Order: sequence, then C-alpha cells, then structure tokens
Amino acid sequence: MTKNRKPWMNWMLFTASLVLVFVLGIVISSIVERKTEAKYAYTPQVQIDEFEPQNEVWGQNFPREFESYYNTADSTFKSKYNGNAMIDMLEKNPRLVVLFAGYGFSKDYNQGRGHFYAIEDTRNTLRTGAPTSSEDGPMPSTCWTCKSPDVPRLMNEIGVDNYYKGKWSSKGAEIVNPIGCADCHDAKTMNLKITRPALVEAYQRLGKDIKKATHNEMRSLVCAQCHVEYYFNDKLPGKDGIKYLTFPWDNGYAAEDMEKYYDNMQFSDWTHAISKAPMIKAQHPDFEVFKTGIHSERGVSCADCHMPYKTEGGQKFTNHHIMSPLQNPANSCQVCHKAETDKLIKNVYDRQDKILENQNKLEELLVRAHYEAKQCWDLGATDAEMNAILQDIRKGQWRWDYAAAGHGNSFHAPVETGRVISQGIMFAQEARIKLAKLLMTKGFKGDVPYPNIKTKADAQKLIGLDIPAEKAAKEKFKKDLLPKWDAEAKGRQSKNKK
Amino acid sequence: MTKNRKPWMNWMLFTASLVLVFVLGIVISSIVERKTEAKYAYTPQVQIDEFEPQNEVWGQNFPREFESYYNTADSTFKSKYNGNAMIDMLEKNPRLVVLFAGYGFSKDYNQGRGHFYAIEDTRNTLRTGAPTSSEDGPMPSTCWTCKSPDVPRLMNEIGVDNYYKGKWSSKGAEIVNPIGCADCHDAKTMNLKITRPALVEAYQRLGKDIKKATHNEMRSLVCAQCHVEYYFNDKLPGKDGIKYLTFPWDNGYAAEDMEKYYDNMQFSDWTHAISKAPMIKAQHPDFEVFKTGIHSERGVSCADCHMPYKTEGGQKFTNHHIMSPLQNPANSCQVCHKAETDKLIKNVYDRQDKILENQNKLEELLVRAHYEAKQCWDLGATDAEMNAILQDIRKGQWRWDYAAAGHGNSFHAPVETGRVISQGIMFAQEARIKLAKLLMTKGFKGDVPYPNIKTKADAQKLIGLDIPAEKAAKEKFKKDLLPKWDAEAKGRQSKNKK
Repeated sequence: MTKNRKPWMNWMLFTASLVLVFVLGIVISSIVERKTEAKYAYTPQVQIDEFEPQNEVWGQNFPREFESYYNTADSTFKSKYNGNAMIDMLEKNPRLVVLFAGYGFSKDYNQGRGHFYAIEDTRNTLRTGAPTSSEDGPMPSTCWTCKSPDVPRLMNEIGVDNYYKGKWSSKGAEIVNPIGCADCHDAKTMNLKITRPALVEAYQRLGKDIKKATHNEMRSLVCAQCHVEYYFNDKLPGKDGIKYLTFPWDNGYAAEDMEKYYDNMQFSDWTHAISKAPMIKAQHPDFEVFKTGIHSERGVSCADCHMPYKTEGGQKFTNHHIMSPLQNPANSCQVCHKAETDKLIKNVYDRQDKILENQNKLEELLVRAHYEAKQCWDLGATDAEMNAILQDIRKGQWRWDYAAAGHGNSFHAPVETGRVISQGIMFAQEARIKLAKLLMTKGFKGDVPYPNIKTKADAQKLIGLDIPAEKAAKEKFKKDLLPKWDAEAKGRQSKNKK
Repeated sequence: MTKNRKPWMNWMLFTASLVLVFVLGIVISSIVERKTEAKYAYTPQVQIDEFEPQNEVWGQNFPREFESYYNTADSTFKSKYNGNAMIDMLEKNPRLVVLFAGYGFSKDYNQGRGHFYAIEDTRNTLRTGAPTSSEDGPMPSTCWTCKSPDVPRLMNEIGVDNYYKGKWSSKGAEIVNPIGCADCHDAKTMNLKITRPALVEAYQRLGKDIKKATHNEMRSLVCAQCHVEYYFNDKLPGKDGIKYLTFPWDNGYAAEDMEKYYDNMQFSDWTHAISKAPMIKAQHPDFEVFKTGIHSERGVSCADCHMPYKTEGGQKFTNHHIMSPLQNPANSCQVCHKAETDKLIKNVYDRQDKILENQNKLEELLVRAHYEAKQCWDLGATDAEMNAILQDIRKGQWRWDYAAAGHGNSFHAPVETGRVISQGIMFAQEARIKLAKLLMTKGFKGDVPYPNIKTKADAQKLIGLDIPAEKAAKEKFKKDLLPKWDAEAKGRQSKNKK
C-alpha cells in the first residue's frame, strides 16, 4: 500500500489530522470551562460565621443549593389527598376537632408548607395564640426549636436552658429566619451537622454517640432533629420553668415503646375536653416509623428520595427543594425502581388508601368513645369507674395519632402503620365495650348519638371554641407585636452584616 | 519481519495451529453432546394419553421435571413458624378448635405437605370421616376436585355433573394418583392447561375468556385452579344432589367482595356450634390475596418464585419441587432482589410477625365473642336480639379466615392482609359491644370467662368432640374400605397399561 500512495492522499490525511486536533481542542476547552465553573461555584465568596442564621448569606457561596432551597416557597403540588399545601385539615376532616378537643390542634390545623414558610406559618396559626407581650401566650419558647437556624445561634448565645425558658413570645424578635442552611450544615466544612441538643441527648441516653454516625446516616439524622416524636419535659431536676425538648426513645421507637415511656412517667400532653382522658399527642414520628420500613432497611436515607441529586451545568448537587418524591419520581423512585411513573405513583396511593380506610374508621370509633365517656360522666360516673376506660381511649388515640400525624407513615412503613392502627381499633373498641356496660349500669340503655360534626364550624362550636375571637386576637397580635419583632430583628441583622 | 522469519518459527506456528484445532474439536464435540442430550431428554419416549393420570408415565418423557416433582415427597424444611410440615395446627393453636366448632377443621388440621401426599393426607384426615360404603361419610365427591389428575380423567369419562354427585367415598377407587402432570399440562404440546371447570366458569361469569390468558398469566392460573376461595353450590337449578364447585368472584377478589357474594345468596358453610353464627369458611384464597400484592403488580407469577428455573446438564427447566421460596432464595428472591439471603428472609418474617400479632389478637376476640354469644343464648336471648351480633361475628371471622387460611397471605400482600385483619378486629369488637349490652339486659353483669383451651384436648372436649371414637372409626375405614379402593384402582390401571 505504502508504495502506491498518491500525493493527494497525504494531503487528505494532513487535513483530517488538522480537523481532529481542532475538535479535540474545543472539547478540552469545554471541559476546562466546566471545571472552572465548578471551581467558581464552590469557592467561598464570603466568609460564613459558625451560627450565621441568614440563608441568603450562605446562598452567596452555594447558589445552586440556595436556589433549590428557595423553591420550597412553592408549595403547589399535585396529590391525590391534599392538593395544595395549606389545605384546612379541620375543614376536610372535622373529626379532628373532636379528637383534639382541649388542645391547640382543634383550633387550627393546616397541611404544612415548605420549610421556607416555617416562621410565617408558626406566627399565623391560632395554635400559637395572640401574645401581647414577651410574657404572654399559650406556648413556651421550646415551640420555636424546629423552626429556624436562629435557634442554634441563640442557644449558643444564651445557653440551652435559657433558650427553653419562658414563653414563645419571649423569643419572637430572635427567631426570624426560616429553616435553612445552618440547621444542618457546618459553616466551615459544609459537612452535615446536628445542631439540636434533643437528638444528641436522646442518642446519649441510648448509649450511642451521634458523632460516630456515618455520612449516610447523617443524611437521615439531620432530618430526625425535628421529624420525630417529642415532648416538653418540665419536671427536670434543677430546671424549674423550663420546658425541655425531649425525644421519648429510651425504650425504642415503636408506638408501644414510646407509650411505655410516657406511661412510666405518667405523662400526658393534655386532658381531653370531652372524655377527660389523659392524652398523648403524637407529633410527627416520621423518623421512627421510617426506621421500621423497607427503605430504611435497605439503607436508603431521607435525602435520597426527598432531596435527590440533580445535575446543572455539569455539576452534580443535592436538590434542596425538599418535597414529596411523588413530585419527582424520575430522580427519586426510578433511580432504583425500574417501573413506569404512573405505576409507581399508583403503588404508593394503593398502600396509603388501604391504611387510610382503617385510620378513618379508627377516628370514628374514637369520636364515639369520647362522647360515650362524656355521657358516663354526665350520668355521674366516678373516677374509679372511668379510669380503665380513659386509659383505653388514651391507648387507642395514641396509636391513631402515631400513624396519622406523620408525613408519610402510610408509605414509609405501611405494614407497621397498619399494625398500629389495628391495635388502635382494638383499644378504642375495648373502651367502648366497657363504656357500653357502664352506661347500662347508669341506666342509659340506648346508643349515644354520633355528634353533629359535619363541618369544622359545627365541630368547633360543639366543643365550645370561639374561633372569631381567637382570630381577632391573632390579628391584633399581628398588627401590634409582630412589627416590633421584625424591626428588632432587622436592626440586629443589619448591625451584624459585614 | 517476513524477510527475517526463521524456519523454527514456521514450525512453532504450525504446531500452535494443530493444538488450537484439536481444542476446538473437543469443544464442538462437547456442545454436540449436550445438544444430543437435550434432544434425548425432550424426545417423547412414550405416547401419553390426553387424560393420563399416572405421573410416572409422564415422567418417562420428562425425567427432570418428574424427579423434581417427586421431591415434594420431602416436606422437611426450616421455617420460623411451622417447622416441618404436618405440624398439628390445633395442638399449636387450640383457639382454632373453638373458631371451627361445628365444622370439620375443629377435629383435625395439620400444616399441609407437598403435592405428593395429596391423596394420602386426604384419606387420613378426620375431616373426611370414616365411610363404610360408597354412600356413606360426611364429605361430598366435590372434595376430591383438587387432589388428583384422576379428576379431569373422571370428569371426561362420566361428565362434570356426575363427578360432583354423591359422597366423597363414591370416588375413592377412582381418585388415587396425587396432584401431578395432567393437572396443569396438555399431554401433546406440554403447554399449560386449565383442567378444572370452576376456574373456567368463574372467568366466564366475569366476562373473561381464560383461553386468552398469556403464558405468564397461565403460570399463575394453573395454580389458581385450586389455591383460591371456593364453595359448594347445592342450589343450582336442575342439578339436585350436586355440590357444584364454585369460585365466589362475581363481585371481585377482595374479602368484602366475596362476602357480599355470600351474603346476597344467604350462604353459610356451617352454623357455629357455640355462638350459632352463620359462618363462612375461607378456604385458601392464595390467588386472590396474591393479586393485591406488589409481586403480582410487577407481573411476577406463582411459578417464578415457587417453581424457579433450574439448570442441569446444560438444560434449563422448571423445578417442579413446588415449595416455599424461603427454602430456595437464590433461585427465587435473588433473581430480582440484590440483598443478602439472611436479610431477605428476615424481611419476610418481619412482615409476617407484624400481621400475626393482630391475627392472634383477632382470634382471641372471636373466641370471646362466640362464648359471650353462647352466654346470651343460655340466658334466653331471642333470634331477633342475636341476629345483628351473629352477623358481626360472621364478618369478623370471615376476615380473620381470609387472612389466616391462605398459605402466604401475610407475605404476598401484607398491607391488604393487615387491612382485612383491622376490619376483622373492628367487627369482632362491634359484636362484643352489642353482646355487652345484651348480657346486661339479661341481667348478666360480670365478664364471660375466657374458655379453658390451653391444649387441643381441652378445647375439643369443651366443644363436645369424641376424638378417640373418630380415630377408631378412621382406622376401621383404613382397614376395611381403603384396601378395596386401592385394589380396584390397581386393576384398572394395569388393564390400561400399554
């Protein structure tokens, strides 16, 4: 061949080589550009303080994470059950008004919105009341603990005990930035970080050192700082007037384990306004229930599905638009599950429907039990006669709430959630068997009628709430006190600005 | 290079070529040998009749399938719950004696063995009684329907109606070969085949043509000929004295759908001996419950896990040693699930434990309800007073049995099974609320004591069974009638042998 090669062939080879080298140059240039962008994107532009509470400041160094975080301001999404966030849960399900009678949740309970709204929604809910001063209102300071990166800042400044001390309103001018960067990240290394004492202390009591958690565990544990069952312990020795945030995990994470913990200390969150039962409010035991499900069993973390990786401009980063994986199955479910989107979503709803059916039934049985208990009291029942009944109601409603209060229990662990609801039905009905006998003993032979709770307004009227008055007081609080909090916070933050 | 090549180099190349060709020859010979073996293995050695009931005859053409089928004779396996097959379920759980009081299952109920024992175990159980002639005994001919490939043969010979007619003992000499080849296979093409009318007819009533089922569907449907809920319809027009095997699927597969079917026709399998409730016995709704689970949703068939593919001598074939996939996770679970064996088995037991907890609780509540109902009858309750209560007991126990009677419901569809058990607990307790009131009305103020059913013997004595007498009669049947059946069958089969 070499012998036969013609001069034009050599020229062609030469030209082809030129073209190839040119294209190669462009490709390399593109790679270098991406690397430059990456370097730019992750080179600190500003120095961030250890307890910097303003997400915007962190956002200057981490624009992609910040922008995606900022998307939590958009809470519109499609869901079979809840439609948009902020749906009025009491309007949708007036049984809840009865179940929470005597407790703040009977006044106002909306489907939650994104982290971006943590401060706004806490200020607006009727549950936080309408304080007129820093010593006024129904809620303790502890209520702020999950709402803001100002919390670790303030704890650092005044100490944990002083932070937990006093009324919710006493910290109103301090806690102003919504849940964000400093809640989960170390300002220097950007590593995940536990900033809330309750989780650290719960681990300590279990004989575990949270500092030994793996990175994969941390991708769930930062969420578990807040998405858990908790209570306010006001009986700690030497800590008078302090409502200390505590996780009841000493016996384990199961509904029965935590119930045993509360029973042992004779704790109740409130006394039920209708039945007088000593109630436990389940907060949102998301982490605990998740731990019993198959995703946790397989080593999946919260962030894997709720903050899946995303690529932009050649950069892979964690999407901080925390949301239901159903809004984003391609990056969450389908990373592992090779099934069609529609089918995957149907599978989730199928599980949830099966759980909801009995959850709804249990609600009805509990409503009946509360009113049957009221009838007994009205007929002169004694504490001794009522005690075992009220314990059954407490057990039944705790199980319902453990299942219902979480954000995704019926998906995270449908078999466990179903198990707990079954037990709840059993206890609610045990209460009603005892109530049936006691009512007969008191000469009451018929059925206690199911209350008229067709609407939220019906139900709230029935349990004696004056919602218009609560709303008027709230408006006054928003007009009088709230602007002062904001002005004080603004002054402090602009003074600290570099 | 060519110019410099030395003669010894040429010799080396030549020798290397010789070695290569020789090895190639051996490889090809090995491949040919395997193909020959395959040809041998699947070339019919004998002609098989369309209704050939003897598995050994089929085995001559399909030695691997037959040998693996024959392994169902070995029923020893490790399981957290049942240990070896043939465990005495009534001894293990004496509550069952009470739940089935008035029905055959209270006499004798063992954990099932492999298909190989279908005839032997049916003959031996006290449930089939001790007939002394072909017109004697508690069970109808229909009871044989799932036990043998003699069934399609006999249906072909005498017609379906005549097959269903008469006593179980009337077909004792005909039905002698255990479940096997002809139950599921076409003798000519070896294709899967539906041989039982009940499934075909159930599909027809649903407006579906079972002949249009895909091969994948058939890998479950051949099992669904037997592993389903069914009843004996003795009210078909023009079919007097016939207990016609029927699947109650007209409204759907769910517990509620089938219950509605039975309620509409006011059907009950038996009247409960203690409570007098009109009971429905769930048989083994394996297929129905499986259909509601995720494996079915993903297109997995029964055979995929219970008869996974196997390779022997270069031949891939379906392992006919039908068994729990837990005995063989490598070929069943791990084909899809990339998790460790121990973990996968733990995941199965975790699901089953969570379901069993409430299944056991429901059993206890039903036992209580039966005895509380008895107390009401003893105190002179009327049918009118008892009717709603007995319906609640029927509903509660049907749900328990729908969940408990299947072979793998708590794994196949744990969320659905949990849902049904929750509903069962709700109904059992509804019955007990009504019972509490009625007992008070009748002047009974205490608690009806839980019966003494610590052992199977206690429980059987309590419900008035004379098991020694039943056993003695069974021995007489085995000594007198059984040898005649076997002799008659042997004569017929040797006459038909080619």
